[in-house]
Amino acid sequence: MAEIRHRVGIKGSAAEIYAMLTTDAGLSRWWTTDTRGAGEAGSVIHFVFGNDGPCFEVIELEPDRRVRWSHYGDMPAEWRGTEVLFELDPREDQTFVNFRHSNWADAGDFLGHCSTKWGVFMLSLKSCIETGRGQPYPDDVHIDFDEYS
Amino acid sequence: MAEIRHRVGIKGSAAEIYAMLTTDAGLSRWWTTDTRGAGEAGSVIHFVFGNDGPCFEVIELEPDRRVRWSHYGDMPAEWRGTEVLFELDPREDQTFVNFRHSNWADAGDFLGHCSTKWGVFMLSLKSCIETGRGQPYPDDVHIDFDEYS
Repeated sequence: MAEIRHRVGIKGSAAEIYAMLTTDAGLSRWWTTDTRGAGEAGSVIHFVFGNDGPCFEVIELEPDRRVRWSHYGDMPAEWRGTEVLFELDPREDQTFVNFRHSNWADAGDFLGHCSTKWGVFMLSLKSCIETGRGQPYPDDVHIDFDEYS
Repeated sequence: MAEIRHRVGIKGSAAEIYAMLTTDAGLSRWWTTDTRGAGEAGSVIHFVFGNDGPCFEVIELEPDRRVRWSHYGDMPAEWRGTEVLFELDPREDQTFVNFRHSNWADAGDFLGHCSTKWGVFMLSLKSCIETGRGQPYPDDVHIDFDEYS
């Protein structure tokens, strides 16, 4: 199975970052402005990009340390069966976020696209904490000319 | 073996992008300003970041389509035995660059770091072609507070 990984170091506490990963208000500041349903383990979060978007079920929460989601529903088809994991690693001068989107059946072009795009959103999360301003959809950085066309 | 993938769509011809991947002048506009040795298959390119940096041997060139490098030398240690592949896929309104850095023995934190950083440099390549200005080292986007410290 294929996997996407990223790692960024953020000037902020693990608690601040954890809030950005576990609440609608936080998630809407760096991934998509239209985020609904974030909550305790068992909740299903819907991330809306225009007319539609993916859902994830929250399957594990360890406060200020670990957030794990399992893909829920049908779209995008390539994400069925995949999981997303955020691990927070606080250090003296920054908190590292280790990100994984794992369990991909196919390591093709769409995985490449999503890898670059997750990188963009990890930098949006970093910017959101450090400057107060992220770049969530629909103000996200575009990586090609097919996006949202 | 683990692998990093990225995919960006660039408003530019495959020939323009190919030149950015196969000449010192091109590579120095998006990865590091101090790039030496790019040439035909068999040449060894040294990418200098401050005092040091990695080398790659050019092992395959298919004009306007495919560029493949094999890591050469000792640093960083985690890159020994790895390969980098750029595949260009021209479409009507853009050229896709499919990037892979493959054959990693360890899928750890450093792979996560390099994945995010390669994403940043793929966007630097895109910007270089589309706006005339990339963000090569030492003007690259930083993703944590350990870089070049």
